Amino acid sequence: MADVVRIGLIGLGRIGKIHAENSARRVPGAWLEGIADIALQQEQLSWAEGLGVRLISRDPRDILKDPSIDAVLICSATHTHADLIIAAAAAGKHIFCEKPIDLSVPRVKAALAAVKQAGLILQIGFNRRFDHNFTRIRELTRAGDLGAVQLIKITSRDPAPPPPVYVASSGGLFMDMMIHDFDMARFQAGSEITQVYAAGAVLIDPEIGKAGDVDTAIVTLTFANGALGVIDNSRQAVYGYDQRVEVFGSKGVAVAENDLPNQVRVSTAAGVTEEKPLYFFLERYKEAYIAELASFVDAVVQHTPPKVSGEDGLENMYAALAAGKSLKEKRAVFIDEVRSE
Amino acid sequence: MADVVRIGLIGLGRIGKIHAENSARRVPGAWLEGIADIALQQEQLSWAEGLGVRLISRDPRDILKDPSIDAVLICSATHTHADLIIAAAAAGKHIFCEKPIDLSVPRVKAALAAVKQAGLILQIGFNRRFDHNFTRIRELTRAGDLGAVQLIKITSRDPAPPPPVYVASSGGLFMDMMIHDFDMARFQAGSEITQVYAAGAVLIDPEIGKAGDVDTAIVTLTFANGALGVIDNSRQAVYGYDQRVEVFGSKGVAVAENDLPNQVRVSTAAGVTEEKPLYFFLERYKEAYIAELASFVDAVVQHTPPKVSGEDGLENMYAALAAGKSLKEKRAVFIDEVRSE
Amino acid sequence: MADVVRIGLIGLGRIGKIHAENSARRVPGAWLEGIADIALQQEQLSWAEGLGVRLISRDPRDILKDPSIDAVLICSATHTHADLIIAAAAAGKHIFCEKPIDLSVPRVKAALAAVKQAGLILQIGFNRRFDHNFTRIRELTRAGDLGAVQLIKITSRDPAPPPPVYVASSGGLFMDMMIHDFDMARFQAGSEITQVYAAGAVLIDPEIGKAGDVDTAIVTLTFANGALGVIDNSRQAVYGYDQRVEVFGSKGVAVAENDLPNQVRVSTAAGVTEEKPLYFFLERYKEAYIAELASFVDAVVQHTPPKVSGEDGLENMYAALAAGKSLKEKRAVFIDEVRSE
Amino acid sequence: MADVVRIGLIGLGRIGKIHAENSARRVPGAWLEGIADIALQQEQLSWAEGLGVRLISRDPRDILKDPSIDAVLICSATHTHADLIIAAAAAGKHIFCEKPIDLSVPRVKAALAAVKQAGLILQIGFNRRFDHNFTRIRELTRAGDLGAVQLIKITSRDPAPPPPVYVASSGGLFMDMMIHDFDMARFQAGSEITQVYAAGAVLIDPEIGKAGDVDTAIVTLTFANGALGVIDNSRQAVYGYDQRVEVFGSKGVAVAENDLPNQVRVSTAAGVTEEKPLYFFLERYKEAYIAELASFVDAVVQHTPPKVSGEDGLENMYAALAAGKSLKEKRAVFIDEVRSE
Repeated sequence: MADVVRIGLIGLGRIGKIHAENSARRVPGAWLEGIADIALQQEQLSWAEGLGVRLISRDPRDILKDPSIDAVLICSATHTHADLIIAAAAAGKHIFCEKPIDLSVPRVKAALAAVKQAGLILQIGFNRRFDHNFTRIRELTRAGDLGAVQLIKITSRDPAPPPPVYVASSGGLFMDMMIHDFDMARFQAGSEITQVYAAGAVLIDPEIGKAGDVDTAIVTLTFANGALGVIDNSRQAVYGYDQRVEVFGSKGVAVAENDLPNQVRVSTAAGVTEEKPLYFFLERYKEAYIAELASFVDAVVQHTPPKVSGEDGLENMYAALAAGKSLKEKRAVFIDEVRSE
Repeated sequence: MADVVRIGLIGLGRIGKIHAENSARRVPGAWLEGIADIALQQEQLSWAEGLGVRLISRDPRDILKDPSIDAVLICSATHTHADLIIAAAAAGKHIFCEKPIDLSVPRVKAALAAVKQAGLILQIGFNRRFDHNFTRIRELTRAGDLGAVQLIKITSRDPAPPPPVYVASSGGLFMDMMIHDFDMARFQAGSEITQVYAAGAVLIDPEIGKAGDVDTAIVTLTFANGALGVIDNSRQAVYGYDQRVEVFGSKGVAVAENDLPNQVRVSTAAGVTEEKPLYFFLERYKEAYIAELASFVDAVVQHTPPKVSGEDGLENMYAALAAGKSLKEKRAVFIDEVRSE
Repeated sequence: MADVVRIGLIGLGRIGKIHAENSARRVPGAWLEGIADIALQQEQLSWAEGLGVRLISRDPRDILKDPSIDAVLICSATHTHADLIIAAAAAGKHIFCEKPIDLSVPRVKAALAAVKQAGLILQIGFNRRFDHNFTRIRELTRAGDLGAVQLIKITSRDPAPPPPVYVASSGGLFMDMMIHDFDMARFQAGSEITQVYAAGAVLIDPEIGKAGDVDTAIVTLTFANGALGVIDNSRQAVYGYDQRVEVFGSKGVAVAENDLPNQVRVSTAAGVTEEKPLYFFLERYKEAYIAELASFVDAVVQHTPPKVSGEDGLENMYAALAAGKSLKEKRAVFIDEVRSE
Repeated sequence: MADVVRIGLIGLGRIGKIHAENSARRVPGAWLEGIADIALQQEQLSWAEGLGVRLISRDPRDILKDPSIDAVLICSATHTHADLIIAAAAAGKHIFCEKPIDLSVPRVKAALAAVKQAGLILQIGFNRRFDHNFTRIRELTRAGDLGAVQLIKITSRDPAPPPPVYVASSGGLFMDMMIHDFDMARFQAGSEITQVYAAGAVLIDPEIGKAGDVDTAIVTLTFANGALGVIDNSRQAVYGYDQRVEVFGSKGVAVAENDLPNQVRVSTAAGVTEEKPLYFFLERYKEAYIAELASFVDAVVQHTPPKVSGEDGLENMYAALAAGKSLKEKRAVFIDEVRSE
């Protein structure tokens, strides 16, 4: 394979457009060869042409069967992920798939098995591992600068809740939102979660409660290496996207604060003010999306394991399932309980 | 009663000396009339004389029977607190008692009953309610500036662990250390804790584990008003005393960072450095100790309820007991379970 | 003219490469049509081809005579700027020129006259006006949020001094380095500098002194609107590129701190550390370079005045000349003194 | 002399009360023996009695002739300082005198000569040398952690201007307000000021201009050791007392930010807010006043030179005079010019 990875992208929604632009313009070694979206609109078509993409289609199979394409980026609706992974594996394409892989464990396992059998690279879109703040903390723990990790604290709050109808189909707070934080927790711990306890409440939107979900939660984690962790999630932080991580160890603590749009502090008679955090994931993780794609391209070119594997996707899912079970049963739940279900 | 409250102090250890100096010199309206310590050393005697104290004794009864003394500060060993409270109530003295009141619920209840019957003021030494950072957050929630409180997060880590022998007699992490944080949680929530889940580990000193305790813990709280909370404790933060509080509500979040000895940031080729937090409670809560005593003096003079009541002491104790039970039984424990035991 | 501005770039050095990449990939509405460099190396040629540039040449005239090119970016050596501006104006190309325009006032005036006569747009590369921090402050003063501007303070220090040989040819500290800060001062004040006093010293490299220059300076400014200002420059800040601005007015102050590579603070027994500032101008002003080019493209498309005009370049130069004169004569120098020389 | 320094205080105004309380209660080794104020009011008398002061008088001579008094604190009006110093020296009392010593150089010299001849200790009230932030920076430079000092920047702004009538009698901005900053500059530089250039303006209150003074100023300094410095002063910072110092050297920079009343940051939909600086000198330098008195007491007990000498007072005055001359003559003024006048 040449040093350029020819990419076909499936699903040109909000996140698909991000990956399309990054493949086309911002990631050295990536070349955006094709785009498919089953409901392609004229606006999307023009947009894709503006990027200079050769193959534009409403049929993902056009991507999968194109011999010049090395890798596919799956950015379509969640329920299509598993089938597309299996089809892409059959077509011999390396795969980058947005999270979650699927809401059903057996379907996830089937998809992972297909990729494994085909000997292809599969990377899952847990983009926060590529954030400048969080990778910095991970470097510190890898280098031993914080000593043995003892406590991991993750704050993750969205600026505004999704529509309740979305909540119903998304798999809920743990599977849709906190799954990013389970991934972050495992990444920072360098160890697997063994046990989960979830406290949750409906404090923001009663409709979310009616849909059977919570909108506020605190989840306590125990890791295989003995460390403890805690994640707090809220569907609505009125001051913006709150994304902080703290890792405490025997030699010290590292705290990642939010990114701000600028470093200006204003003092008036009314008080001292600085900027609110970057608004939401598109702003906050703009560079992380580029870095994750660059990492995928690198893994494909170098034939090395991806930084976020299909197994990571599965483990994160187990944590989400265990959290749901814990919330229902008001007790700590071992990951092994859900793993064996 | 005059505007000056004449104080007798019992127990001239580390914390007793703080209260002695504050009564003698820093709290307007307080007058330090007497000091008793059953094991008074020459050094302590000279020190007390230096403060200009009239009555210095090895017998606490000399304090209790002195008619010119309006109020006693009980700073002696924990196991003496309950008896001294009962004796002081019988002697008609208002009482400030260091925390915890006692390690036994019935003894605490007996002490509170004695005070109640005597119609006296009893304030418990949960000093952190008087800290400038934490009172600022409480003002914000009282004023409604954060909206409905949804999440409370308390970080509380000591710079160095106590000797394991102390751990055994202290009642353990939850009763000795986290009890301050339960109090802070209740203070900030403006609501009682209804349920507790504790995760704990021995990550710092195996001797603490042998003594039957943990040295690291994360405790999740549910409050009567629906809010959730989480406390993390460590017996050893090598960078110093880590005392932070975060209260998140429907209108925003308030975060209290650590106090530093100065505001100097130094940038060199090696990096950018600022000071570590103030080392431990004597440094960090220096002003809070003055403010809590001033508040007690004020309550005595004005005949108003103290800012931290005996009932607060009892509720904090229930939370600690519930946390211990949760840790043992690996499940969420309702406060009512321990209340009715 | 179409909405796409076809760009020819002259001078493919360090800053030329930045503008080339930005024109080719990052600025919507820009299209990099040609590159010329009189000493083009094979490496540069390959690099330019990688960007997909059609016209690559060793002769700038190939750019100027190409009818499909709308605008030129002049990134070659300073002594070539004025002639290239005049030639580009003659060729009917809009012009973006790196600072300084020239070291000779008459030559600058000749270049500006040529552009004016041709009715073309000329923007000078004072990129810091497009920095997210400094534009934020300017927005505040424009909106009146700081009231009447009274004091402007600019800190501008390089991480490492240039070679003394460069110093000799560059025009010196005031003309080469502080000229950016004069521009920033005028931008923030919204008013012209009327008077300058310069104190300077050789504290870093005696060779710079032998070359007749200073490496450390504090320059006080008086503005036409009555405000005062001060700039401090150092050729060597060992902790990195120090770029801060403070604007103080009757209603408050805005302070722009340095940008950091991440928001992680690390606390250990040794102290609390955060990142050093972004290393130098390529890192710090990466986004500002994109924004300045986008602004130029916008001015060309909209036929509106550029955000940084040739007259701005001339005024900045007067300030630099006045500073040099002040340093020599140890007195305050009016801008009008140098303007009329 | 015993370890206790018996103090007589002259002048019970705002600053006198601070020193009285500190001598009586907060500085170990100090004993407040007497207070004199020529216009003593009943309120002041009661207040002084509340401190337990033995000798309370309207006649400063009662203090000076009292044989049990070791040292006097001169806190009366500026025009009385020199005579009181001379009288105190004649009476054999050590002297702490508030700044400035006097507005006339010959009178200052006469006072210093009297003290010198008597072999007594004289400390001048430049309290900022005892501030926790500024002493921290000085420790760093003393230890060589910042290398050779190259640039010193001092920001010093008051929250509100004094009444214009005060301005007239105070000696003006340079002598009354910036004199503190000249002292800070000399303290941080560890070197004398050799040259001064002042730019000033009337931007806040035209009445101050009518009184012949400026209310806003930037003063550039050159030090004997080659370093440069700059001070900016404003009579009105609407956000509060702005007291920052920055020392830049060959090995790095130290920046002292303002002290805040608490460390709480509040994020809402409207923005992220923290506290304004401590309001004014009584709040900001509360601890510095205690430390300066403790240092004086220590100098008296140990017979060591005071941390701020009479000569410091004189040097600061020269700098203020030079600044005034510079402002008038629009040129840099050497300190030696005013020294020899």
